[in-house]
Amino acid sequence: MATYSCRSREELRMEFKKMIARYVDLQHEELKLDMSRGKPSKLQLDLVSDMLNVLTDAQDCIVDGNDTRNYGDLAGLKCAREYWADVLGCKPSQTFVGGNASLSLMHDLITRAYTHGLTDSERPWCKEERVKFLCPSPGYDRHFRITESYGFELITVPMTPYGPDMDLVEELVQDPTVKGIWCVPKYSNPQGYTYSEETIDRFANLKPAAPDFAIMWDNAYCVHEFDGEFEPFRDIISLCAEAGRPNMVYEFASTSKITFPGSGISVMASSEENIAYHTKLIGVQTISYDKINQLRHVRYLKDKEHTLELMKRHAQIMGPKFEMVLKILRAEVTNKGIAHWHHPKGGYFVCVAAMPGTAKRTLELCKRCGVVLTEAGATYPYGVDPHDSMIRIAPSLPPIEELEKAMHVFCVCLKIAALEKYLGISMEDVL
Amino acid sequence: MATYSCRSREELRMEFKKMIARYVDLQHEELKLDMSRGKPSKLQLDLVSDMLNVLTDAQDCIVDGNDTRNYGDLAGLKCAREYWADVLGCKPSQTFVGGNASLSLMHDLITRAYTHGLTDSERPWCKEERVKFLCPSPGYDRHFRITESYGFELITVPMTPYGPDMDLVEELVQDPTVKGIWCVPKYSNPQGYTYSEETIDRFANLKPAAPDFAIMWDNAYCVHEFDGEFEPFRDIISLCAEAGRPNMVYEFASTSKITFPGSGISVMASSEENIAYHTKLIGVQTISYDKINQLRHVRYLKDKEHTLELMKRHAQIMGPKFEMVLKILRAEVTNKGIAHWHHPKGGYFVCVAAMPGTAKRTLELCKRCGVVLTEAGATYPYGVDPHDSMIRIAPSLPPIEELEKAMHVFCVCLKIAALEKYLGISMEDVL
Repeated sequence: MATYSCRSREELRMEFKKMIARYVDLQHEELKLDMSRGKPSKLQLDLVSDMLNVLTDAQDCIVDGNDTRNYGDLAGLKCAREYWADVLGCKPSQTFVGGNASLSLMHDLITRAYTHGLTDSERPWCKEERVKFLCPSPGYDRHFRITESYGFELITVPMTPYGPDMDLVEELVQDPTVKGIWCVPKYSNPQGYTYSEETIDRFANLKPAAPDFAIMWDNAYCVHEFDGEFEPFRDIISLCAEAGRPNMVYEFASTSKITFPGSGISVMASSEENIAYHTKLIGVQTISYDKINQLRHVRYLKDKEHTLELMKRHAQIMGPKFEMVLKILRAEVTNKGIAHWHHPKGGYFVCVAAMPGTAKRTLELCKRCGVVLTEAGATYPYGVDPHDSMIRIAPSLPPIEELEKAMHVFCVCLKIAALEKYLGISMEDVL
Repeated sequence: MATYSCRSREELRMEFKKMIARYVDLQHEELKLDMSRGKPSKLQLDLVSDMLNVLTDAQDCIVDGNDTRNYGDLAGLKCAREYWADVLGCKPSQTFVGGNASLSLMHDLITRAYTHGLTDSERPWCKEERVKFLCPSPGYDRHFRITESYGFELITVPMTPYGPDMDLVEELVQDPTVKGIWCVPKYSNPQGYTYSEETIDRFANLKPAAPDFAIMWDNAYCVHEFDGEFEPFRDIISLCAEAGRPNMVYEFASTSKITFPGSGISVMASSEENIAYHTKLIGVQTISYDKINQLRHVRYLKDKEHTLELMKRHAQIMGPKFEMVLKILRAEVTNKGIAHWHHPKGGYFVCVAAMPGTAKRTLELCKRCGVVLTEAGATYPYGVDPHDSMIRIAPSLPPIEELEKAMHVFCVCLKIAALEKYLGISMEDVL
C-alpha cells in the first residue's frame, strides 16, 4: 500500500471510514489498559519475590562483622558498594549506595547544587543570575521536571541515534550559565538509543565553561537488554578522569527494574572527591539508608554475572512484549508515511515519531478507547513537544494479550489522527 | 558527705587523689564503650527480628488490591497512613508516610522551605535577607545542623522542665525573620522532659509574625516509655487547627526505635493543605517510598495498642539500663554540688548538667579511658555550649554490665574535672 501522501482523497476517505469502523468496534470492548509508565509486570515481580526470604533471622543481617539492623554506613554497606562497582565498572570508593530511588539521588544532587553548590562551584546555583540545563529530547520527563522545579532554563538538544547532537552540546557548554545535561546513555528513555563510542568520548572530553558543569549520567538500563546478549558499556567515571575532569560526571543506577520498583536500592557513582563532598552533605539529611535492604539485594543479586542471568529471565518476559509492539506497528503502520520508530534491544520503551501535529490527537483518541499512554509532550522540556509528534509506549506492564489489543487501538488512532490531518475533517464530523 | 564547695582544700586534695587512683585502675581495664548515640541494643534488634518473616511471598505483598511491589502511592500505603494516624492521634489524610528516616523528612521539609517556600510563604527562604530559627537547648544536634546547613541564624532558647521557655519564644516570634522552631515535645532529647499542657497550648496558640513560621514537632519518642505506663499526648495538628493556624505545625515520627534503626518507616503529619503541597513537591523527588517495608511494618506492628505492647518489651531492656545510670549517678555524684540531672521516664537519654566549665574536660577524660559520649557542646547550636556543662548519656547500646563500668568511668571523670576546677591543678600535674 502506498503512503497516505500518495493516495487520492477518495482512497484516504475510504481508509478513514475503515479506521473509524474499527475504532467504534474497539470502543465497544471497553478496554482499560495502561501503557503510560515503565512499570514492570506482575510476572516480573513474581520472578524476584524469592528475595523476600533472603534474610530471615538476626544472624542473616550481620555482614563483615557489621549489624545492618542498626544505624551506620552512610555511604552504603561495603558489599553493596562493591556490588555496584562490579555492575558499573567503577571502584567501590566511587560509589554511594542510597535508598529505594535513584531519582531521589538525582533530585537531591541537583538540590544540593542549588542550595550549596557542587564540588567545583563558585557559589550555590540559587545565587546564580541564571542557570541553564541541557535536555536531550525526547527524554525522560522526571529528569526535566527536577531541573524545571528549580527554575532552571531548559534547553532542548535533539537526540540522534548516536546520542544527543554533540556538535550542539559542545557549542552550548561554552556558555558558563549552562550547568549540566541529562543523559540516559544506554537504551535511552524513550527512544532506546545507545550512545555511540564517539558520543561517549565527546562527553568525557567536554570542556564546559562552567567549572561545576554536571553530566547527569542516568544509567537506568545498564543491564536491561531484552533482545540479545548483554552489551558492555564503558565506565564514564574513569573516562572523565582520564580526560582531566573527574568531577564532571555523576552516574546513577538502581534495581527498580531488576527487583522491586520502589523497594530496591540505588547508587550514585562519581569521583572520590565528589563522593566525599556529597556524603558529608547527605550526612545532614540522614544517618544512613536502609542497609537491611541493601544486604537483601546483595545476597540475592550476588554480582554482575548473576544479575545478568536474572536479567535474561526478565528478557523472556519483556522480549515478547516488545516483539508484539513492533510486529503490530510494522503490520499496521509501515509504509503509510505517518510514523517511524526505532527497534530497541533494551530499556523500557518504544518511541513512535508520529506525523507532526498528530501525537496529542492520537493519545486523546486512545484514551477515549480506554488505552492510556504517556502524555503527549512529556518527553520534552516543559511538557511541550514542538512538533507534537513523539509518543512513548511502555509495553512492560500489561499482559501480552492486553498489550496486543492496546497496540491495535494505538495504530487505529494513529491512522485516524493522520487521516484527519490529510482530509481536514475530524472523526466526530463523520460519526 | 558535704558538697565539694563546702570542703576544705585538704579534703578536696584527698578526694582528688582517690579519684585519680580509681581513674588509673579503670584505664588498665582497657575499656571500649560507646554511649554517644541513641542506638538500640542488639537485644532490642533481636526482639523485632521476626519482622523479617512477615512478608514471604508475592501474595503477602498485596494489600487493599494494591501490589506494594510496584511503583505508586507517593504519600504512603493507605494502611500505613492509618497506622500512623492511630499512633499520633491525627487523621490518615494528615499524614505522609516516608522512607527509613524521619530526619530526611525534616531535612527535606526545611530544604523545600529554602528552595520553594512553605504553603504560606511569601517567597522561598533562600530569597529572604535572613532567616532565624529557634533552637531550644540543650537539644538534638542533628536538628540544629539541618538549619545551620542552610545558613540560618540559630537562636538558643533555654529549656525548662516544662518545655522551651515560652515567654521567650512568644517574644522572639514577633520577629518576622524568625521562621521556625525545633521541638522534641515528649521525652526531649537530651533531657527527657515532656512539654507541659500549658506549653503545648502556648505552642498551638502561637501568633508568629512570619506567615510561614514552622513548628518542627519531632515526636521521636511518642511511644517510648521505659518506666511506667504509656503517657497519652495531645494531637498538636488539631490543636493548631483549632487555634486558627492549621499550617503552622509539622509533626514527625518513625519506627527507628521501635523496629530497626535505619530500616524502618517514617511519617510527617500536618494539615491536609500542607500534606497536599508537599506531596506535590516530593513527587519531583521520587515516585514512591518503599511500600513493601511500609506493609511489613504495618503487618508487624498492627496498630497503636499492639505497638505499645512491643514497647513494653523494649522497656524491659531499656528500663534497667536507665536505672543503672541513675543509680550510679546517685551513688557517686549526689550531694557533691557538681552536677544535676532529670530522671526521665521515656526517650533515649539522660542529660547531666555538670559544673560549668567541666563538660569538655569530663568527656576528654572519659575518652582516654575508652568511654565515648556525645561530644560536649553537641546539644547546643553550632556545637557550642556557652556554659560547657551539658553532657548527654545514651545508655541504650551497651550491654548492662558494660554500661555499669562506663558509668563508673563517667562519674570518676566528672569528679576529677570538678576537682581540677576547685584545686586549680590538672590530673596530669599530679600523675
